[in-house]
Amino acid sequence: MNKEDYFISCFEKNIFLGDDAAILNNMSISQDAFFENVHFKREWMSLYEIARKAMLVNISDAIVMNGKPKYALLTVAIPKNYTRQELKELARGFQETANAYGITIIGGDTIANVKLDISITILAECKNPVFRTGIKEGDLLAFTGNLGESRRDLMRLLRGYSVKPNSRFINPVLRDSFFYKVAPFIHSAMDISDGLFTDLEKLHRANRVGFEFFKPIPKRIGCSGEEFEILFAFDPRYEKKIKNIAKITRTELTIFAKAVRKPYRNLCKANHF
Amino acid sequence: MNKEDYFISCFEKNIFLGDDAAILNNMSISQDAFFENVHFKREWMSLYEIARKAMLVNISDAIVMNGKPKYALLTVAIPKNYTRQELKELARGFQETANAYGITIIGGDTIANVKLDISITILAECKNPVFRTGIKEGDLLAFTGNLGESRRDLMRLLRGYSVKPNSRFINPVLRDSFFYKVAPFIHSAMDISDGLFTDLEKLHRANRVGFEFFKPIPKRIGCSGEEFEILFAFDPRYEKKIKNIAKITRTELTIFAKAVRKPYRNLCKANHF
Repeated sequence: MNKEDYFISCFEKNIFLGDDAAILNNMSISQDAFFENVHFKREWMSLYEIARKAMLVNISDAIVMNGKPKYALLTVAIPKNYTRQELKELARGFQETANAYGITIIGGDTIANVKLDISITILAECKNPVFRTGIKEGDLLAFTGNLGESRRDLMRLLRGYSVKPNSRFINPVLRDSFFYKVAPFIHSAMDISDGLFTDLEKLHRANRVGFEFFKPIPKRIGCSGEEFEILFAFDPRYEKKIKNIAKITRTELTIFAKAVRKPYRNLCKANHF
Repeated sequence: MNKEDYFISCFEKNIFLGDDAAILNNMSISQDAFFENVHFKREWMSLYEIARKAMLVNISDAIVMNGKPKYALLTVAIPKNYTRQELKELARGFQETANAYGITIIGGDTIANVKLDISITILAECKNPVFRTGIKEGDLLAFTGNLGESRRDLMRLLRGYSVKPNSRFINPVLRDSFFYKVAPFIHSAMDISDGLFTDLEKLHRANRVGFEFFKPIPKRIGCSGEEFEILFAFDPRYEKKIKNIAKITRTELTIFAKAVRKPYRNLCKANHF
């Protein structure tokens, strides 16, 4: 057991191993960190882009629970030497992203720190949540979009090259429009944050199913994290309906596997502390 | 304007300048950071004490809104070199404090980081919130407990001396039992986190009142932050009732000023980034 899993196992419930968000009184609540030198390096992105991505990765958790994000709390730890211009750019990234999704920023905390570390809580209206559990044998598995770009661009950045400003790694594309429409017809969903193969391992553990792949998926695709595309499972009888919603919302969709009784092995390297 | 206020002013609302928590659907929601080398140094406290204080300072925000804490989300950034024993101690600090207050830990995030940085969100049942606003001219101002110990012990720690394990700086005492009983009879409340004089400045700004002190309060008391005692205002006709509740709950109470129309000047040094 790695240290992260060990830490989690010290709590009374496996609190961090569950869904993308917790559900309380028709609300989904989720909190995620976005830390300098952990999730990003300052030279990779502008402060506006950093604040926007910090918001989007948190909004993504609400969307995949079928929640409509409403409120955000921001905790922002900021280096003392930031100029007013920099603070303004950072605030604009949070505010404009919140506005784009109809989110009101209702609180939080600002502190001085050695680096830029952001922690965001999103509260979303969530009357019909979609969980990670719920997959049945015979269900089809699908993901939205094209996977692989995020990992490829992260590798480029780590090697010192630049990437396009619209790279998925810099500016994730969320699939809210597609997902809210398919949500009534699916059994289970999560966002692809650790990579398809690693996230499938979570579905495997939560549902005790394995997956029969329709064709092999290369590691450059299956091990690409921070895609924030949606991985979901549904009964084959809704295949046509779901494909139609994908077409109408211009969402690329890959139906790649069937849930079956068999073990599962994640082919990606672990990325834990 | 200092940089912190400037950053806050860049948002559409003065989101961080309001109450200790936001109120939504009969719930209070608050999020506070507890960061290494910002709020504590590792050599000052055990990991158990750090986790406990991180929880308590957040629970305090819920209590002063008259909220009953119910749920917590923890984001914990942990150095890679922590041993299993250390992780266990940290988790125990969170879990036991949550249990003591009837709080269920429902989610969060764990990441590897260069230092121990904690961010906690508390959700509390809060049907009759008490806000910072609501003070009327003629109201009496009071605080619970004895102020000054937290600053004195912080100074000792900064000079390399040790402090008692039951020091308020290490283990804040929350006044939930007293506060829930007086809440129906008061106009306004907040916890003393930045120091009495600085927190009075917030009440001054929120209520446009000044304060006539009954006797001078020395700086070692008025400028002592992180006390987590409660500062509140009430109509003089409830003085006897409130004193009686203090007696029954064995809570020390100091009625120290009257709200009047006059300016206010904070005598403490600013502590912003």
